[in-house]
Amino acid sequence: MNALTQNDFFARLDGTARAIETLLDGLLAPEPLPGEIERPARLLEAMRYAMLGGGKRLRPHLVVETARLFGAGDEGALRAGAAVECIHGYSLVHDDLPAMDDDALRRGKPTLHKAYDDATAILAGDALQTLAFDILADEATHPDPAIRVELTLALARSSGLGGMVGGQMLDLEAEGRFTPEGKPIPGDETSTLRLQAMKTGAILASSVQMGAILGRASEAERQALAVYGRALGQAFQIADDLLDAEGEAATVGKATGKDAARGKSTLVSLLGASNAKARLSGLVDEAEGALSVFGQRGDVLRQTARFVAERRS
Amino acid sequence: MNALTQNDFFARLDGTARAIETLLDGLLAPEPLPGEIERPARLLEAMRYAMLGGGKRLRPHLVVETARLFGAGDEGALRAGAAVECIHGYSLVHDDLPAMDDDALRRGKPTLHKAYDDATAILAGDALQTLAFDILADEATHPDPAIRVELTLALARSSGLGGMVGGQMLDLEAEGRFTPEGKPIPGDETSTLRLQAMKTGAILASSVQMGAILGRASEAERQALAVYGRALGQAFQIADDLLDAEGEAATVGKATGKDAARGKSTLVSLLGASNAKARLSGLVDEAEGALSVFGQRGDVLRQTARFVAERRS
Repeated sequence: MNALTQNDFFARLDGTARAIETLLDGLLAPEPLPGEIERPARLLEAMRYAMLGGGKRLRPHLVVETARLFGAGDEGALRAGAAVECIHGYSLVHDDLPAMDDDALRRGKPTLHKAYDDATAILAGDALQTLAFDILADEATHPDPAIRVELTLALARSSGLGGMVGGQMLDLEAEGRFTPEGKPIPGDETSTLRLQAMKTGAILASSVQMGAILGRASEAERQALAVYGRALGQAFQIADDLLDAEGEAATVGKATGKDAARGKSTLVSLLGASNAKARLSGLVDEAEGALSVFGQRGDVLRQTARFVAERRS
Repeated sequence: MNALTQNDFFARLDGTARAIETLLDGLLAPEPLPGEIERPARLLEAMRYAMLGGGKRLRPHLVVETARLFGAGDEGALRAGAAVECIHGYSLVHDDLPAMDDDALRRGKPTLHKAYDDATAILAGDALQTLAFDILADEATHPDPAIRVELTLALARSSGLGGMVGGQMLDLEAEGRFTPEGKPIPGDETSTLRLQAMKTGAILASSVQMGAILGRASEAERQALAVYGRALGQAFQIADDLLDAEGEAATVGKATGKDAARGKSTLVSLLGASNAKARLSGLVDEAEGALSVFGQRGDVLRQTARFVAERRS
């Protein structure tokens, strides 16, 4: 295998994104599956609105490229990636609700509850979560049921009470803590890192983990990939916080400057942008280094770490 | 086995309810499971508020008693029952939200969003759904992963887009359709039955189905149980609609008279109370009859059908 060019990398990223779009389009078809009664048109439309129409599909990319490290087939990895994407998508729909972050814009278009209504957004989010576990449990994802339950458990543990949902709870609790003089009370670094590890890091890390499960990776390989996944998750979050602090809404595709307005602590607000960028760079090094066990085969995931750190939207 | 007395029946129902309470208490403990990072206190408390403190635990009872038909162990059936109960519980939390049914009272106490806030209720519901699939995928539910994925798929298909969540969407769409003169526009019987089959019938039927999966029931036995489960689900809904039309809030534990106020079609509004009661009685006969293949072993499930039809809360 020759060295990976940036063009190769973007072609792979794009290839997975297109495959995920096609797969989700098929999963969100009007025909009910065995065991379902009927798929109500409005709910299905809302779910399609939330899930289709692009996006980088970073989480599926992580599942697919990790599985490819081990020569595992793309079909199962794409389905597992679609499941993670459903979890990610439902969390965005619910987080955007007026009762939560109250956002009107997402990827440059109205959020689901703005385009439909709050009730439909709640239900579409709920049904997307269900769909994620449906996809993983289905035989089409892997012939071995032991692999399917392992995938299910990895996704559940990273996305529920002790992961993504818990992180959103901590985030809401941390927001809007102000002194009597109206100054935000900053969280400390430890609690900010933990919150972010739960809210966004956990399902990025579990995307990598799911690729390793599909690839029947050895324990040593899993541990190397766990280090990679954690570093990548932190890098992703710092890059996100930098975008919020420094980006323009038109480029980023959603409102920016929200963290400061909400008195929300990030590594950018706690350390300053310059130190946060140094931290980000260190995390990319850590992520790349963790892949040494895979030699040149790890180049796509290495490039992914750089891509995540440098992204502008 | 001697004939089942009513006391025996209530002792079994109560025994399962107590076991489920203990199991949920343990599942909603502060210690994170492997793969989880931390369980935030407020979120955990809200989930406990929604799930603990009694209730008939009808769905777990159905899983457990169906599994017992085949001599399958209680431990796995109770866990599967707890998973269904988490799905049922999350749906109540979300349905009670102001954006949906806007209910203030549930089982005689404030609904979750009243006791906490809307954001916490949305997140607690989300995490309860995740927990349901976590429970099913965990080895403790059954040593055979093929059984665990089958349970997962049964619960996902009955509770998502094509089942429970879809039914709630149809229900919201059907509500509040009034003529220009302010008279409610009734749904027809077919669409009302389909809506109810999705919203409440599907997970009652899948509770029975999950017991059959745990019991490795034959195809003929599964079909008999599917007939039972469908009839039971319809009977449950008619009994519920009769309670709403004729019951007192103090006895029922939640507001009554809501269906009429919302212009919601039920078999009671479409057929009249007397005809609905006759239909209910026919469904109980159908449910009981479907169990003939099990002989006297089916007595607990038979009694369950009568209990569901006659309940007063």
